[in-house]
Amino acid sequence: MNLTQFQAHYEPLIQKELAELIDALSIPASLKESMHYSLQAGGKRIRPILLLAVLHELGGEHPEALKVAAAIEMIHTYSLIHDDLPSMDNDDLRRGMPTNHKVFGEAVAILAGDALITYSFGVVARLQHVSSDDKVRLIDLMSVSAGAEGMVGGQVLDIEGEEKKLTLAELEQVHRLKTGALLTYSILAGAILGKATPEEMLALSRFGEHLGLAFQIQDDILDVTGTSQELGKTAGKDESSEKSTYPSLLTLPKAKEKLDYHAAEALQAIQALGGEKGLLEELTALIVKRKN
Amino acid sequence: MNLTQFQAHYEPLIQKELAELIDALSIPASLKESMHYSLQAGGKRIRPILLLAVLHELGGEHPEALKVAAAIEMIHTYSLIHDDLPSMDNDDLRRGMPTNHKVFGEAVAILAGDALITYSFGVVARLQHVSSDDKVRLIDLMSVSAGAEGMVGGQVLDIEGEEKKLTLAELEQVHRLKTGALLTYSILAGAILGKATPEEMLALSRFGEHLGLAFQIQDDILDVTGTSQELGKTAGKDESSEKSTYPSLLTLPKAKEKLDYHAAEALQAIQALGGEKGLLEELTALIVKRKN
Repeated sequence: MNLTQFQAHYEPLIQKELAELIDALSIPASLKESMHYSLQAGGKRIRPILLLAVLHELGGEHPEALKVAAAIEMIHTYSLIHDDLPSMDNDDLRRGMPTNHKVFGEAVAILAGDALITYSFGVVARLQHVSSDDKVRLIDLMSVSAGAEGMVGGQVLDIEGEEKKLTLAELEQVHRLKTGALLTYSILAGAILGKATPEEMLALSRFGEHLGLAFQIQDDILDVTGTSQELGKTAGKDESSEKSTYPSLLTLPKAKEKLDYHAAEALQAIQALGGEKGLLEELTALIVKRKN
Repeated sequence: MNLTQFQAHYEPLIQKELAELIDALSIPASLKESMHYSLQAGGKRIRPILLLAVLHELGGEHPEALKVAAAIEMIHTYSLIHDDLPSMDNDDLRRGMPTNHKVFGEAVAILAGDALITYSFGVVARLQHVSSDDKVRLIDLMSVSAGAEGMVGGQVLDIEGEEKKLTLAELEQVHRLKTGALLTYSILAGAILGKATPEEMLALSRFGEHLGLAFQIQDDILDVTGTSQELGKTAGKDESSEKSTYPSLLTLPKAKEKLDYHAAEALQAIQALGGEKGLLEELTALIVKRKN
């Protein structure tokens, strides 16, 4: 199965899992609608696909991989809802649609995000076919990746970075935390479910680190070279806000070089893995070449 | 040890545990300061004390009870930070001090809340002296109590309830979720750490339910009868906003009757417990008689 087939197979299943997990909750209608709205707004589902691809390449299958993948997508979605708020990035559009707070108001948007991050831990805690030891590992890493030492810390640095010119090292730190941490978590969660060896975990962790940086550099590049229609969000926003980005700190050609470097390192990291790695190689190429 | 001695012994330890847990994080300075600020703002620490008291009454000690108690206080504090935001209750004062967003701005306040709820799961996942099975139970219940089917759902109902007159059943549902869920969780977490029997869990769960309602009825009563100085927050806010409360739906004397009823039911529930229950009886009395 190539990546296109893999995505075509799993995307509707991810969508269905997300819908079912939210439908299973006995909660106020407005809250449920708001959670569904942002989860069903589409997106590339890169994190769930990464988890499933790692599991697949490790030769594993897991009856509840989709649940863990969905939990990670919930965390990603919560972070988007909160990042889009007026007091943060103040975005009106996300994936080509009005942002959550534009539709449901700020209070419900904040609470929908709170509900998603909190639920994601419960989804993992309630898995039926994962040992308690592995659930605890999944939850521990989830908390670090999503929390103050990961995504939340990255968002703080990102906001504070808007008011000053960052060094390249500072910019890289923002991205390691804000984007890299959860991408790497998706990979490691697949590795845990796939019973990876410590060596495989290490290789996959390095893969995730470089993939995350490549992902973010491409994001910065697209903000310069893409159109709002392609991106499904306002293009050129970084430049007009004088935000530090790879192109602004390095020039566009040098940013593209750095993108290629991290993509090559990501590919290098997984050479240590036995067995298949076609899906992970294709995913790396996709992240480098994506238009949105 | 009576309750006053128990509180005097544990309050500084809870404070210290909270400070240490946050200090252990490698995170941006502003985020750390914001998390410390709200955690150190005091408050009655009712949830940690409940957990510790239940554990004590069950005849148990646990080397990491303070960590779990601190995790619960983090969840409580996160909910206060988010509830106080301009788009929610828009409160400027909390425990007699400026609210988090007044000091650190809305963006950092939202993110400090996000960091606290996410960290609380990690704190439990990383306990050293609790079995993985018990950690998973603690995390599962924590997710339900704090999430969409608990506190978050209660806050949504509370906000939506401001625009209409609630029935008594609706008001009770708001409080069961918004306040009761986490109070009951504190009790059950103590029970899990104290290796309670299923019968004891059930009795303590009933205790928590009635205690939570008593707590909230007293909160509503204090909003009518207390002063801003006593409360450390704006008094009379419910009445001026025409919010549905026990006094407004029932009259003040009938609200007091209902308070006494739930306090009596709480005390009745713990008669089934063997051993000591003096601390829990005193806690019930404290909640009924408190002035803030």
